[in-house]
Amino acid sequence: MARTPRHRRLILPLLCLLFQGATALLFAVFVRYNHETDPALWHWGNHSNVDNEFYFRYPSFQDVHTMIFIGFGFLMVFLQRYGFSSVGFTFLVATFTLQWATLVQGFLHSFHGGHIHVGVESLINADFCAGAVLISFGAVLGKTGPAQLLLMALLETVLFSTNEFILLSLLGVRDAGGSMTIHTFGAYFGLFLSRVLYRSQLEKSRQRQSSVYHSDLFAMIGTIFLWIFWPSFNSAPTGLGDGQHRTALNTYYSLTASTLSTFALSALVSGDGRLDMVHIQNAALAGGVVVGTASEMMLTPFGAVAAGFLAGTVSTLGYKFFTPVLESRFKVQDTCGVHNLHGMPGLLGALLGVLVTWLATHEAYGDGLQNVFPLIANGQRSATSQAVYQLFGMFVTLVFASVGGSLGGFLLKLPFLDPPPDSQCFEDQVYWEVPGEQEAEVQRPLRAEEPDTQA
Amino acid sequence: MARTPRHRRLILPLLCLLFQGATALLFAVFVRYNHETDPALWHWGNHSNVDNEFYFRYPSFQDVHTMIFIGFGFLMVFLQRYGFSSVGFTFLVATFTLQWATLVQGFLHSFHGGHIHVGVESLINADFCAGAVLISFGAVLGKTGPAQLLLMALLETVLFSTNEFILLSLLGVRDAGGSMTIHTFGAYFGLFLSRVLYRSQLEKSRQRQSSVYHSDLFAMIGTIFLWIFWPSFNSAPTGLGDGQHRTALNTYYSLTASTLSTFALSALVSGDGRLDMVHIQNAALAGGVVVGTASEMMLTPFGAVAAGFLAGTVSTLGYKFFTPVLESRFKVQDTCGVHNLHGMPGLLGALLGVLVTWLATHEAYGDGLQNVFPLIANGQRSATSQAVYQLFGMFVTLVFASVGGSLGGFLLKLPFLDPPPDSQCFEDQVYWEVPGEQEAEVQRPLRAEEPDTQA
Amino acid sequence: MARTPRHRRLILPLLCLLFQGATALLFAVFVRYNHETDPALWHWGNHSNVDNEFYFRYPSFQDVHTMIFIGFGFLMVFLQRYGFSSVGFTFLVATFTLQWATLVQGFLHSFHGGHIHVGVESLINADFCAGAVLISFGAVLGKTGPAQLLLMALLETVLFSTNEFILLSLLGVRDAGGSMTIHTFGAYFGLFLSRVLYRSQLEKSRQRQSSVYHSDLFAMIGTIFLWIFWPSFNSAPTGLGDGQHRTALNTYYSLTASTLSTFALSALVSGDGRLDMVHIQNAALAGGVVVGTASEMMLTPFGAVAAGFLAGTVSTLGYKFFTPVLESRFKVQDTCGVHNLHGMPGLLGALLGVLVTWLATHEAYGDGLQNVFPLIANGQRSATSQAVYQLFGMFVTLVFASVGGSLGGFLLKLPFLDPPPDSQCFEDQVYWEVPGEQEAEVQRPLRAEEPDTQA
Repeated sequence: MARTPRHRRLILPLLCLLFQGATALLFAVFVRYNHETDPALWHWGNHSNVDNEFYFRYPSFQDVHTMIFIGFGFLMVFLQRYGFSSVGFTFLVATFTLQWATLVQGFLHSFHGGHIHVGVESLINADFCAGAVLISFGAVLGKTGPAQLLLMALLETVLFSTNEFILLSLLGVRDAGGSMTIHTFGAYFGLFLSRVLYRSQLEKSRQRQSSVYHSDLFAMIGTIFLWIFWPSFNSAPTGLGDGQHRTALNTYYSLTASTLSTFALSALVSGDGRLDMVHIQNAALAGGVVVGTASEMMLTPFGAVAAGFLAGTVSTLGYKFFTPVLESRFKVQDTCGVHNLHGMPGLLGALLGVLVTWLATHEAYGDGLQNVFPLIANGQRSATSQAVYQLFGMFVTLVFASVGGSLGGFLLKLPFLDPPPDSQCFEDQVYWEVPGEQEAEVQRPLRAEEPDTQA
Repeated sequence: MARTPRHRRLILPLLCLLFQGATALLFAVFVRYNHETDPALWHWGNHSNVDNEFYFRYPSFQDVHTMIFIGFGFLMVFLQRYGFSSVGFTFLVATFTLQWATLVQGFLHSFHGGHIHVGVESLINADFCAGAVLISFGAVLGKTGPAQLLLMALLETVLFSTNEFILLSLLGVRDAGGSMTIHTFGAYFGLFLSRVLYRSQLEKSRQRQSSVYHSDLFAMIGTIFLWIFWPSFNSAPTGLGDGQHRTALNTYYSLTASTLSTFALSALVSGDGRLDMVHIQNAALAGGVVVGTASEMMLTPFGAVAAGFLAGTVSTLGYKFFTPVLESRFKVQDTCGVHNLHGMPGLLGALLGVLVTWLATHEAYGDGLQNVFPLIANGQRSATSQAVYQLFGMFVTLVFASVGGSLGGFLLKLPFLDPPPDSQCFEDQVYWEVPGEQEAEVQRPLRAEEPDTQA
Repeated sequence: MARTPRHRRLILPLLCLLFQGATALLFAVFVRYNHETDPALWHWGNHSNVDNEFYFRYPSFQDVHTMIFIGFGFLMVFLQRYGFSSVGFTFLVATFTLQWATLVQGFLHSFHGGHIHVGVESLINADFCAGAVLISFGAVLGKTGPAQLLLMALLETVLFSTNEFILLSLLGVRDAGGSMTIHTFGAYFGLFLSRVLYRSQLEKSRQRQSSVYHSDLFAMIGTIFLWIFWPSFNSAPTGLGDGQHRTALNTYYSLTASTLSTFALSALVSGDGRLDMVHIQNAALAGGVVVGTASEMMLTPFGAVAAGFLAGTVSTLGYKFFTPVLESRFKVQDTCGVHNLHGMPGLLGALLGVLVTWLATHEAYGDGLQNVFPLIANGQRSATSQAVYQLFGMFVTLVFASVGGSLGGFLLKLPFLDPPPDSQCFEDQVYWEVPGEQEAEVQRPLRAEEPDTQA
């Protein structure tokens, strides 16, 4: 296949225009404001719960957006020569996903009278889908072009939404913060996709697959914003009141513990006791992932701390010992280590959800049982039966992720999608006009007392 | 004119002290807490709408502050040698504008009993004014000193507030997110000002008028925060309830479309299919500008997507093809390309507002018509008549901006204001103590096992 | 004392694990959800004030977290070779403090029935404690290792919480934004600690104790986020309604004035009229500190502006003239100048609180007096008497801070805590794996049209 500049010039804009044209058309035909957003359907007082709910959720909603665009975008800026692509393609892919997920999720959840009815909660759900897509992006970061990523988002959004619909709506599984639907799904989708796209000659770009001092500081912007707002992420879809309070509190405690365990383990496993920025940037966040399912439940503050500690430990050990094996043994090249931050902690989070669900009693939850486990409260299921459903949901997610990711990998091998060559991975210059690193003049002139055209 | 260090030493501090002294004096004489802020005037329950409203608006309020200081400040950090000035002068100018606009807008809007009565909404309005001033700053970035900028803010705040008062209060024009009052006004004020300050010898500083790798990443912090919080910006002054929901939703959809069209067009118009960071940093935001007037109206989700797509396209093409013409033909040097991000999308947004106003019906808005178009709901105006007023508002804004900007240009030519010489534009060192670029020691010492005074 | 790599390898992980183990154990035994967080104790409607309050405070709550982790973390990134440690140790220390303060403050404030009852407000209070600890960190930045900092946090949290309990609960002192409890305490604790740890040979590391261009831009991220969200910080614990409105408004006005005075003074005191980034990054924030006590009171808008102006002036002059004296005369090495940003403005803020309290009348506050000065409203104290208590609170704080900081200094001299040697202060490499500064290849390859393993 002869790769020509002309060909490269056209594939990305054509895909953008095609996708935008198609979603615009679908928006025109199907998408309408819902009763919270349409002035003719709105009445204060009549919808007093609804209207308050929006305002109570608005801060969380903006926090989640910050996580998606600033958090994921800058977390991936750690590579020395891939900052434009990391933050730029995050921007592109998340943006497209917001539109596309509005449609796909709208068809599944709010399609009636021939129309999809959208409100601000449509955007929260679309953000969650974008989170999964960006997790998968982390696995293939630097080895895929923007056209490939748009196609990945196209496919993954459909599978994410279907899997989420099966779990939450058909199986009655609880997964507020998405340990299963977002983290497990996004990670294994990306890992299977990366397996199919395995590059045996990737060491040709190895010198670019590390960070520099400043790129690590940029990445910490991503880490810290993800850390701060993770409680909003996990609690965005939970019941108002105690549910949202408890979820936020559990998530914070879990994150503090995963941070402390990451610092401990990072120093412990290094040869000379020095901390590794890769661990701090990533494994410290595993506490948010691991309580994605259980944080709305009666996890207890101690349970949150214990879960976070475990997740930080597993994640740090994963970066140190398992990521190399994943590549050498399983031929999975996982650029950001999403297996350590989202994969294993996501599975642990699903299992933690099974455990805490299994322990649920009417006494522990009181009237709140209706919000957290409506099917148990209504007598349709026992706690044990709900726990089995939770476990089943995890397996369904793994099947969707692995089959979907493999499928996605073959799709992304379509030759016209313009992947970077092996020797040009992790390199912005393939897709971006890149300015120089150094300022124009190295020696700075003193302020010259020269005549000025202005005065 | 002989420029002396002594002279430079004094002009900025004197202006700061003079302006701060004057506003402090005016604060002492005129400014009082309003009924929401004064403990003796406040009663829970009696003001239940008022008190809730503050809390419902507080997140938007902080989002708008984030846009002004982080968003605008870092967006302009893209220049290689002008980061301190971009973020520092944004800080200075926005800060002064917050005080000064509180006074000017207070005299126009909340002056009674001999006092200006301020509450938190005074700060939202002042932030909007600061937004316009910073847009103008973008046009003259790198070519003006801080004393000039303070004087520009002094004048522009008065004209902004007067124009806004004429449009919103006298003409009954609707412009929640400020397509006209903020973006069109700020852009053309800055462009006319830049025209008057035209520097024929600016190519002497041309080598500094580009970015470096890291400065572009810093600028993306600004872009992304502006993008995330733009829905809060447009919806901050709209009616609570469906109005705020709809405005946020429309703004998001418009921004997603402008981002996709920017990526498409940026790759399409470049010689070799590579993306240009200038386009991504700026044109992707045009979707927020273009729905500044119409996003609170029944724009429909499709309308928002279509408007955003158009704005992103026009803006990207503007950066590629029109900015050079603006300089060569019209002698307007527009450093940040505010004509592309705020000028043209602002005018398009005003026209979109005319169109959507003209289409307004009682059926489409129901009871909500009272909030969006009170004069139509009350029977004082027809939709067509309101549309004509909207159009008239756009022309009033253009007159204020062009006359005011020209006036401002001549004001800023006052010789004692210490502009940078042609060869020292876009250079922090003129106004800042600048540290070196490189670390003290290039080769890092290994940890020496030396004795320590502490142990 | 022979310092060995093996020893260094173990002290930090062991402390992390020990501390995390101990707090986890205490969490298991003592910490339970409170009535807002436990589903069995929650009833909508019955707790209508409580439940609304959470949502009204949630944005402030997240703003405060942003200040602690992004604000403080990045503000301290200004050092050229200490970015990883600044943001990383902030992350570590604040994280541990959140857990530990939850326990200590819980025992003091919400211990009943044998349990500590935690809700989201526990995290706000813990964040405030983390703020004080990070202020102290600023004084010793670059001269202490992470194990020392953890021990400092252990001690300081206990003393902070005790001092806060004595002031707010026993003495009935008002200090919403913590001019005394947070800023004065944190600053003088750190300064006394730094005095005890005085290093006579610190000039061995002097070449690393300055900034570089990009590190100053990173630091501005910290400054601006602190500036934006300071109104949320000061108003987070005030009464809902007019109290929170007034506090936010006063804080904003004070911050605008301190910013303007910092720009004025910075240019005035420099030799050649150029601005100094150290002043802008720090002294501009002094307006938030100085109204920490008085911003919930009837300070008046003019009072806020005047206070902010004074604070910015004192702080800038402190950086220029007093910091060198502090080191040469008093042997206090204050890396971040916390004496200028938190110490002096904190004391001024305490005195301002005394003054405004002394002026409090029933007329000025109306029914709101109950919220701001309940003991005056109930007739238990006169305004003068309350003012004396405020003054006494300041002295109590100074005693706690100075004795505690000195104690802390001797504790941190324990030899096994692994401080950096004099010649390796302000150097990340002592504790972190540090990547290179420059990219792998300096000359960038053009895109090679080579065969690709993927296609």
